[in-house]
Amino acid sequence: MDDRLSAQIAFLSEADRLKSILRASRLHDDSRFENSAEHSWHVMLYAFVLAEHASAEVQIDRVLKMLLLHDLVEIDAGDNPIHGDVDEHAVAIAEAAAAERIFGLLPLDQASDFRALWDEFEAAQSPDAVFAKSIDRVQTPIANLANGGGTWRDYNVNLAQLETRVGSPIKRGAPGVWAWLRPRLAAFFARA
Amino acid sequence: MDDRLSAQIAFLSEADRLKSILRASRLHDDSRFENSAEHSWHVMLYAFVLAEHASAEVQIDRVLKMLLLHDLVEIDAGDNPIHGDVDEHAVAIAEAAAAERIFGLLPLDQASDFRALWDEFEAAQSPDAVFAKSIDRVQTPIANLANGGGTWRDYNVNLAQLETRVGSPIKRGAPGVWAWLRPRLAAFFARA
Ligand SMILES: [Ca+2]
Repeated sequence: MDDRLSAQIAFLSEADRLKSILRASRLHDDSRFENSAEHSWHVMLYAFVLAEHASAEVQIDRVLKMLLLHDLVEIDAGDNPIHGDVDEHAVAIAEAAAAERIFGLLPLDQASDFRALWDEFEAAQSPDAVFAKSIDRVQTPIANLANGGGTWRDYNVNLAQLETRVGSPIKRGAPGVWAWLRPRLAAFFARA
Repeated sequence: MDDRLSAQIAFLSEADRLKSILRASRLHDDSRFENSAEHSWHVMLYAFVLAEHASAEVQIDRVLKMLLLHDLVEIDAGDNPIHGDVDEHAVAIAEAAAAERIFGLLPLDQASDFRALWDEFEAAQSPDAVFAKSIDRVQTPIANLANGGGTWRDYNVNLAQLETRVGSPIKRGAPGVWAWLRPRLAAFFARA
């Protein structure tokens, strides 16, 4: 029991490092880059508030747990911006190794449960994972609209690219949210 | 539907400001103060990992939702360090007004659900709230042990004060965690 709790606390202490992993996205007030820990919190809040846009079979409690864990691998593998020039195969290998090491800090039963939840999220096939992935794509566009362009400006992104990289996953998991967001993105790019 | 989603996004955008509310606690690596958004994420991870230490009637899914929302009032009311010299009555009034305004950005049904969850957390009476409150007290001591004293040094806290301010709520909701933590705190203060 003492060893078990020590392993759990070792994992939770290692998790603190996610607060120092910076994303490409900025806060709404444009004051600084966002880190992956506060992003994870914000995306969970998005999922909770927007749960009514999920398909009927989605279990929001599982979605929240997926989103709680989804970025921990970035402690080792770093954040890989969707508009960046990323070698997806190399990233997948690095993230799998990170999952092995980081979830492996936990007692065996939890390591395997957490890893299964993360694998399900990454696979993006189950209804819960599809919704979690779609919500994970909603937050940054809203921040970019608020702070005047954010990552779109930095990476020179156009509306057609956004339709593919952001629109497709959002439409798949939360079509009502995409119906709301799309005209707002179009209006932004028409002005830009 | 469009209005409803606009209200939800207005709430989620306002929530971004929690990333700029600084706490008295520091990261494990002592590099900077922690903000309340990343703290909220970390405390949810604590609750998920340590759920087996909760009493049998605790529903961890409700605990995670409470912790997801628990600090949003700090956007208006600020963080009030437990070792600081705080007027608890004034804080309670400021936080209730903050809850009214911030949850009030949501559509009525969600505003009332979220407010009820936050009220339950604040009341610290239901099994879920007791566990959520206890876990909210665990994270900072672990950070302080990691970074060499943190808020204990800043606020000149001794072990007896910790027993009251931190030990009591942790013991109430997660006695097994306190049994693990207490000797480690004692060892730290014996060295300090
Ligand atoms: Ca707190």
